[in-house]
Amino acid sequence: MKAISDIRHSKLRFGLAPSLQTTDYYPDTMDLGHENQGSSSCPVYVHNPHLKTMKEDVLYHFNLGTSTHNLPALFGDVKFVCVGGSPWRMKSFIEYIAGELGLEDPKSEYPNICAGTDRYAMYKVGPVLSVSHGMGIPSISIMLHELLKLLHHAHCTDVTIIRIGTSGGIGLEPGTIVITKQSVDATFLPKFEQVILGKNVVRSTDLDTELAEQLLQCSNRLNQFKSVIANTMCTMDFYEGQARLDGAFCSYTQEDKQDYLAKAYASGVRNIEMESSVFASMCKLSGLKAAVVCVTLLDRQKGDQLSGSHQVLHDLQQRPQILVGHFIKSQLESSGKI
Amino acid sequence: MKAISDIRHSKLRFGLAPSLQTTDYYPDTMDLGHENQGSSSCPVYVHNPHLKTMKEDVLYHFNLGTSTHNLPALFGDVKFVCVGGSPWRMKSFIEYIAGELGLEDPKSEYPNICAGTDRYAMYKVGPVLSVSHGMGIPSISIMLHELLKLLHHAHCTDVTIIRIGTSGGIGLEPGTIVITKQSVDATFLPKFEQVILGKNVVRSTDLDTELAEQLLQCSNRLNQFKSVIANTMCTMDFYEGQARLDGAFCSYTQEDKQDYLAKAYASGVRNIEMESSVFASMCKLSGLKAAVVCVTLLDRQKGDQLSGSHQVLHDLQQRPQILVGHFIKSQLESSGKI
Repeated sequence: MKAISDIRHSKLRFGLAPSLQTTDYYPDTMDLGHENQGSSSCPVYVHNPHLKTMKEDVLYHFNLGTSTHNLPALFGDVKFVCVGGSPWRMKSFIEYIAGELGLEDPKSEYPNICAGTDRYAMYKVGPVLSVSHGMGIPSISIMLHELLKLLHHAHCTDVTIIRIGTSGGIGLEPGTIVITKQSVDATFLPKFEQVILGKNVVRSTDLDTELAEQLLQCSNRLNQFKSVIANTMCTMDFYEGQARLDGAFCSYTQEDKQDYLAKAYASGVRNIEMESSVFASMCKLSGLKAAVVCVTLLDRQKGDQLSGSHQVLHDLQQRPQILVGHFIKSQLESSGKI
Repeated sequence: MKAISDIRHSKLRFGLAPSLQTTDYYPDTMDLGHENQGSSSCPVYVHNPHLKTMKEDVLYHFNLGTSTHNLPALFGDVKFVCVGGSPWRMKSFIEYIAGELGLEDPKSEYPNICAGTDRYAMYKVGPVLSVSHGMGIPSISIMLHELLKLLHHAHCTDVTIIRIGTSGGIGLEPGTIVITKQSVDATFLPKFEQVILGKNVVRSTDLDTELAEQLLQCSNRLNQFKSVIANTMCTMDFYEGQARLDGAFCSYTQEDKQDYLAKAYASGVRNIEMESSVFASMCKLSGLKAAVVCVTLLDRQKGDQLSGSHQVLHDLQQRPQILVGHFIKSQLESSGKI
């Protein structure tokens, strides 16, 4: 089946789907999602009728394009995409997964596919793509628009995408992994507001519940660190937006901070980061199976500063890589692909 | 005069300053701003009483800290800070300005001061600091919190900060520089909404009008390219948020796009980028003289894709560097510092 971008294209529909708590949706995804249940070949959807009219598509922030690169040949076999903020971490992940899958380059060379730009870094080994996304919603949003188009142009099918990141925990031992159930905003609601033509459009931030459960079971089997499934709060800012007391500006008290974090905890939030909401909403619109797997570097109820030794913080940052690496390996083994 | 962080600290005050169209402000800045008029030593303000109670301050995303680095010795002489999205561009800027100021390193070595992290890159030559900030409001916001604290800890005074960036133009010849008059949001209003403890706080996005005028005069003297002073729209997203037709998702028509851009133009907007609003609001709160100088890479009324040759785009990206380099040189010359 070919990826589609032009059928039953929906206008923005405000308030038509109250049960979804969202104000726009793409009926083609939802309907075809049903038709495809049980299908073994589910394409990556884009929802943009204009793409078909373009002679070429320049993926500017990747320094790739449909006229300059054979995207199906380069990326057509991708089944797993892992994304994370730091380019160094995403290079380290590709080296790690190459070892796990027995696909090491004998020269240990893993070239940056986006070498012509410093906006993002991208690495690939076998069916696994590793891409950095910088910090914050706008930065990951640019990357995801271009990644979804790349997967679409490359005719990829059955792609699973996982964000492996770092976060601040609430009421958890540092080093605990949170597999996100729902990504919620700063008022603890599971929604992402996208501004389109100056108007707010509300999108769902649901993630794949089956995938989250599989990752938790994988962590339990590994038995190297604790993982939980819980809500993740996604903020626009690291300091004032997360009730930190150590930013350049702070107009609230320690008590105000603790009250806010306690409310977050009571609503089911166990960690705070800065990308999960737009990640969840864009992956959902595209029909990609998506999960967010973040380690907590500190307990925010006990502090704000990341003053642990670099070695300790570095070791904690390995945990999402180890869990997701193990998951990918087990998936490929169970499908007989390695 | 020492920088202050603890006097007359204001609580969030909703609706108390309607004439400012903002919902929080720091009276210490405003009052001292008046007291300091004509003073030759204006410190960088932070507004956080908690900072004084901390034994050390780890500037995590810079990999710097008050216990591990002598910040006054390293940064106390900084008078100009230039920031931009791309780390490569900010390295190129420091090389350029070193040449302009006759401060070249004979070995052409400009080490990255934040070498221990890949979140941001930072370079310094003489009184000029060059820092990358990634893409989008959250990414530049983290950097600015830590930069403002760095300048505060280093006891810097009389600092001018300029963002040198790229943008999409509206109704301008590509290559034109826009010096931002006001940074406006996606509804063309000059405000930035900061979420604090789950509540929206509205901040002003005013920039220094005198500095903007000086930069325009500097560009006119240079006579190498056209510059204008105009409003800049700051968005949360590069594709749907800027009415592009070439994202992974697009639910509007070419006509809808053109209508939106025409409204932006009518309101005084001449370019669109993704960082200026929080940059303006944070610099204003800190008492830093601030300007935003962006080159337009294309006219958005004529297209969306950045498909020009890399050499052409690279050359256009030099223009803000050339203008700001010339400005800094002339400022240092006129004050007898070089």
